[in-house]
Amino acid sequence: MRVDGRKKDELRPIHFEINYVKHPEGSVLVNVGDTKVICNASIEERIPPFMRGQGKGWINAEYSMLPRATEQRNIRESSKGKVTGRTMEIQRLIGRALRSIVKLEDLGERTIWIDCDVIQADGGTRTASITGAFVALVLACGKLHHTQKISKFPIENYLAAISVGIDEEHGAILDLNYIEDSKAAVDMNIVMTGTGNLVEIQGTGEEATFSRAQLDQMIDLGEKGIAEIVTKQKEALGDLVNFISANK
Amino acid sequence: MRVDGRKKDELRPIHFEINYVKHPEGSVLVNVGDTKVICNASIEERIPPFMRGQGKGWINAEYSMLPRATEQRNIRESSKGKVTGRTMEIQRLIGRALRSIVKLEDLGERTIWIDCDVIQADGGTRTASITGAFVALVLACGKLHHTQKISKFPIENYLAAISVGIDEEHGAILDLNYIEDSKAAVDMNIVMTGTGNLVEIQGTGEEATFSRAQLDQMIDLGEKGIAEIVTKQKEALGDLVNFISANK
Amino acid sequence: MRVDGRKKDELRPIHFEINYVKHPEGSVLVNVGDTKVICNASIEERIPPFMRGQGKGWINAEYSMLPRATEQRNIRESSKGKVTGRTMEIQRLIGRALRSIVKLEDLGERTIWIDCDVIQADGGTRTASITGAFVALVLACGKLHHTQKISKFPIENYLAAISVGIDEEHGAILDLNYIEDSKAAVDMNIVMTGTGNLVEIQGTGEEATFSRAQLDQMIDLGEKGIAEIVTKQKEALGDLVNFISANK
Amino acid sequence: MRVDGRKKDELRPIHFEINYVKHPEGSVLVNVGDTKVICNASIEERIPPFMRGQGKGWINAEYSMLPRATEQRNIRESSKGKVTGRTMEIQRLIGRALRSIVKLEDLGERTIWIDCDVIQADGGTRTASITGAFVALVLACGKLHHTQKISKFPIENYLAAISVGIDEEHGAILDLNYIEDSKAAVDMNIVMTGTGNLVEIQGTGEEATFSRAQLDQMIDLGEKGIAEIVTKQKEALGDLVNFISANK
Amino acid sequence: MRVDGRKKDELRPIHFEINYVKHPEGSVLVNVGDTKVICNASIEERIPPFMRGQGKGWINAEYSMLPRATEQRNIRESSKGKVTGRTMEIQRLIGRALRSIVKLEDLGERTIWIDCDVIQADGGTRTASITGAFVALVLACGKLHHTQKISKFPIENYLAAISVGIDEEHGAILDLNYIEDSKAAVDMNIVMTGTGNLVEIQGTGEEATFSRAQLDQMIDLGEKGIAEIVTKQKEALGDLVNFISANK
Amino acid sequence: MRVDGRKKDELRPIHFEINYVKHPEGSVLVNVGDTKVICNASIEERIPPFMRGQGKGWINAEYSMLPRATEQRNIRESSKGKVTGRTMEIQRLIGRALRSIVKLEDLGERTIWIDCDVIQADGGTRTASITGAFVALVLACGKLHHTQKISKFPIENYLAAISVGIDEEHGAILDLNYIEDSKAAVDMNIVMTGTGNLVEIQGTGEEATFSRAQLDQMIDLGEKGIAEIVTKQKEALGDLVNFISANK
Repeated sequence: MRVDGRKKDELRPIHFEINYVKHPEGSVLVNVGDTKVICNASIEERIPPFMRGQGKGWINAEYSMLPRATEQRNIRESSKGKVTGRTMEIQRLIGRALRSIVKLEDLGERTIWIDCDVIQADGGTRTASITGAFVALVLACGKLHHTQKISKFPIENYLAAISVGIDEEHGAILDLNYIEDSKAAVDMNIVMTGTGNLVEIQGTGEEATFSRAQLDQMIDLGEKGIAEIVTKQKEALGDLVNFISANK
Repeated sequence: MRVDGRKKDELRPIHFEINYVKHPEGSVLVNVGDTKVICNASIEERIPPFMRGQGKGWINAEYSMLPRATEQRNIRESSKGKVTGRTMEIQRLIGRALRSIVKLEDLGERTIWIDCDVIQADGGTRTASITGAFVALVLACGKLHHTQKISKFPIENYLAAISVGIDEEHGAILDLNYIEDSKAAVDMNIVMTGTGNLVEIQGTGEEATFSRAQLDQMIDLGEKGIAEIVTKQKEALGDLVNFISANK
Repeated sequence: MRVDGRKKDELRPIHFEINYVKHPEGSVLVNVGDTKVICNASIEERIPPFMRGQGKGWINAEYSMLPRATEQRNIRESSKGKVTGRTMEIQRLIGRALRSIVKLEDLGERTIWIDCDVIQADGGTRTASITGAFVALVLACGKLHHTQKISKFPIENYLAAISVGIDEEHGAILDLNYIEDSKAAVDMNIVMTGTGNLVEIQGTGEEATFSRAQLDQMIDLGEKGIAEIVTKQKEALGDLVNFISANK
Repeated sequence: MRVDGRKKDELRPIHFEINYVKHPEGSVLVNVGDTKVICNASIEERIPPFMRGQGKGWINAEYSMLPRATEQRNIRESSKGKVTGRTMEIQRLIGRALRSIVKLEDLGERTIWIDCDVIQADGGTRTASITGAFVALVLACGKLHHTQKISKFPIENYLAAISVGIDEEHGAILDLNYIEDSKAAVDMNIVMTGTGNLVEIQGTGEEATFSRAQLDQMIDLGEKGIAEIVTKQKEALGDLVNFISANK
Repeated sequence: MRVDGRKKDELRPIHFEINYVKHPEGSVLVNVGDTKVICNASIEERIPPFMRGQGKGWINAEYSMLPRATEQRNIRESSKGKVTGRTMEIQRLIGRALRSIVKLEDLGERTIWIDCDVIQADGGTRTASITGAFVALVLACGKLHHTQKISKFPIENYLAAISVGIDEEHGAILDLNYIEDSKAAVDMNIVMTGTGNLVEIQGTGEEATFSRAQLDQMIDLGEKGIAEIVTKQKEALGDLVNFISANK
Repeated sequence: MRVDGRKKDELRPIHFEINYVKHPEGSVLVNVGDTKVICNASIEERIPPFMRGQGKGWINAEYSMLPRATEQRNIRESSKGKVTGRTMEIQRLIGRALRSIVKLEDLGERTIWIDCDVIQADGGTRTASITGAFVALVLACGKLHHTQKISKFPIENYLAAISVGIDEEHGAILDLNYIEDSKAAVDMNIVMTGTGNLVEIQGTGEEATFSRAQLDQMIDLGEKGIAEIVTKQKEALGDLVNFISANK
């Protein structure tokens, strides 16, 4: 039994609140246990300079935490005048992951900005951000499609992410909360598509190492967790799921 | 009749959701019409260098907007690497206003950080921030008092803020939403205590001017609005109101 | 009797030294008591991006203090690498105030940069800056008009500013010097036109509050002071006053 | 046959030039094919604030490229005034990897700074940096041990890193050069110890995905490559290898 | 005859206005032709970290121009968020030059900050700054000595600076104004003591070169000019000259 | 006899390793004693905004040190977020010196970027940078000429630099190493052409002064040293020397 009573391969409750903020083209508040992230997708009718003239779109992600999303208050990055390495790593990961399931040619020459703002943190904020950002992205594409700005729906597959880890007491566990994450010897984030392909895998043993057998156990857990999350995403998206290529 | 059907002296609906985020010592989500602000109060057992050795506490406020709190997405201040002048003005105003009703001697040598994060904006975000920040501050002081870290409750009075303005069509109006604010000839923010004293008044005629008679009408509206808001704050705070000096 | 022997409603001596620096289109050294500010107006034949295509001009203000304008030396903002909140508030105020009495359509698509550099400070530097900046602005418009770059003189009214406050010993007082400002319970800056309309009013009770009666007394003093300052501005401007619309 | 004539599981030639720069406690120029990185280890008799009072040491890494290490000249990060996200990711990775094989308690309260400066780049700069940084670190520890500043040698195991990837033409390949890296569908960096345990694994399909079978093939290649690199590291380190715990 | 009617070896008129700003311990407005610089010396009872524990003082200089000191308005360095290379070069030069004639042991453990703010520029601002800064420095030392904070006067010699150059039309010329400076093939700044020793010499042929014979002519002119400036400094300093060691 | 056994007028051994890095159009590793600098020249087919429309090229230099090029590790300028004054001075000097012997009209509308990266420092890094940068520049021009992008070779003369100084023990000495530089009373850098003309002279007496006689001795030494360095440059450049105008 884990610290919050879950089994080793059990996710925390997941909930999506669709259209959470009124202005963005796509908006969702995602709850993964006590981790809460507002994911907003904004459409900009422009692409960054390095993408021009290719007839393709772009997806860019930004990630931030409210100062008191955590147990201890953090100094705002705007006050520091710079974005930390951790934030940069996370927002690069989110953007890369989303681009892997989007056909950028079908998006047209526009950028979708994904803003993931953590309002309450209890472990797994980067994976919750990817999971929620996917939903916001589909909503925004739905709006583009509905207003006929795009003719082909550019989302090719589902996308979700989850953390797994190795814990001295329980071995491999799924979906670590903050307490578990602090104690874990190995921490791994897995991003997969709705059809079970890997998109990104990042495993780290801070002051520790892990064997290939442990790696395999962690990926097994990740596959199981992501399949369950994708089911929840489908419920939240309703009719929009019909447009996603992998679903056809 | 105003654009949203209100009368000239009518506030938008106000709602406080207490303990919105779990980590902060005081937390509230305040809704003023479609304007939504998370106000968190965090206690730090330290004071800034310029306050040391005076046996007094300090209150510091920070304000930010999610990039897509507004109709158009704004670039994050952390990405720009600096805080804008508008943000600085607002956070200085919030801090100053709160300090006016706190007996800093009774707070002890600690800082209360107030974080106001606008998640959805529809005009009046700075006044909603002050109104909500007051509630978060009282909650945090309640926690200090309950755990006996302070012996005297340091809040001397209620505090709320509202915007008023001059509109070509309706003259003086109370609590401007975004559309009204964009068109107003004069824009004024009023901060008052629960017993009707002024704390801060900032009136601006951008490319316009106003007479003393108009000034008086605006202050009349502000007084009425603030009295109504304070009533709502009392409901939200429940038993804690008994500790506020002005209430005794 | 106040600390420097003045009556409650008495201004400090004001003096304008016209054409103080040789390069700017408009330049004045304004002395308000021991507060000395160089106000330079520079014409740039361009407007900022957000103003393009509207056939209008723009006025932008910057404010700074020499490091040793004050009793204690301040670190330069260029060394800090950023502009403080106080500076931003002041330069936004100066720009906004000046724009309220300029018909931007008559200025043409150009920017007038106003630089207010305080070389010696003794209270009231922001109001002295506005008062001096108005003179520099009129001089620069005079040059534009004289060289026939503009056909209609764009200045519609006089503009001046003064501080007022509440002092424990004297009550409401006009034009606070540094010592008075440090002790005042309430500090208010008033910007008015030459015909007595309000342009901006900013009243603050840092760790204090004030009543409507006190507000009224302060505005009365401000009106009196500004009328006297405008008389001095007219003397300094000489024949140029004939072009100001409010004067016709 | 790959673009440079190598087999799929073949490394590029690796060479270590020990004591390359004279000042650092540990210095090596590592060549992996045409990729050349100067790795310097500097001992500082201080630890960062967050580590104080734990009786442990710390290892911190920084990474940079000369502007013309690459085909196109890059703007210096010092000129931009900020470090890019890519650089931050890499230097966090190097530091984390090195710390995994160091017993920080045995290092004492000091910091070892690792500087990896790429003077010529042809793919795999981050893995070459880890491989070279390990050698520089051991040299620096050798100096500490030789001068009896530490009594126990703090290095517990060998550490090396290599890139693997999936290429449309060849499938899984080992040690990608720049041309291969540009075309690869999947790019993975693997960090392992000398005894075959995983320390870090980062696999990314930019605009692509990969199966578990492909993941397994890539890890197989990585294991083979790292074993060969460790052999080269041992040759370069000479007698110092006797102090490394895993060797005993 | 030069552009302003001077002879080749003729200085522009120099004037010092002592005690120009009231707060600094030493303050002077120096005019060299149309170049005007406010030089303020501020005493801080602290020394920078790298000087601690040596029983010596320090002198630090900062230099800035008002945005419209020049023909074209320059963007403020505080707005840019960084100090330009030119400014850094100049302030390092001023500090170094002043330190060469001060016995830092006799200053005690305190810093004298020298602020040179150019309010009007017409060539030679860096040399005028040094010339004026020397006067401000002596005034500040006079105050330290008068209040008996120091027992020995720490100024060992006079110090002044001047520009010289090579002009196609006139050959070597002394004290270049802005027009001459723009056209000169070679530009040299010379800093010397009151007894004719060199402190600093910086000669530059931007897109040009110069012979040793030309170098000698320029130094001859510089020696003549500096002797004349030192005479003016003595007049300005009055009785304080008696304390300067070189004068005894 | 000096600390390393040299005579007063003796250079340290100089060596140029041509084509040190493979990507740049011109690349050299220059060794002056234990000072080692990588000098890369990169051609960019663009000129900076202030040079546009003049039909001329531009040369821009940047200078940096690896953190551990020196005895003590220095913090990276990219980590500090800004370039120091010393770096700015040096890179401005290198660029200016190179431009003095280039006919910018013959370069065409392109920029040559010179990057001088010190990998090991033992005094004289700025003069070694100029000496090496000249070689890299000629190599890059050779490439432009060979590929017929330019028809006239734009290099008009040789260029080299050396440090000289005044030492208490030996008087004037040539080519100071780090130990000598630390103790020298006067430090001077001289840049000259291959035909003996001065390009730049910068002499500084930090907390010291020097006479004209000493100045003359130092320049004599500089002339001798530079002639010897130019001979070495010619050997390194081989056939390319035939294109340099001064050689014809």
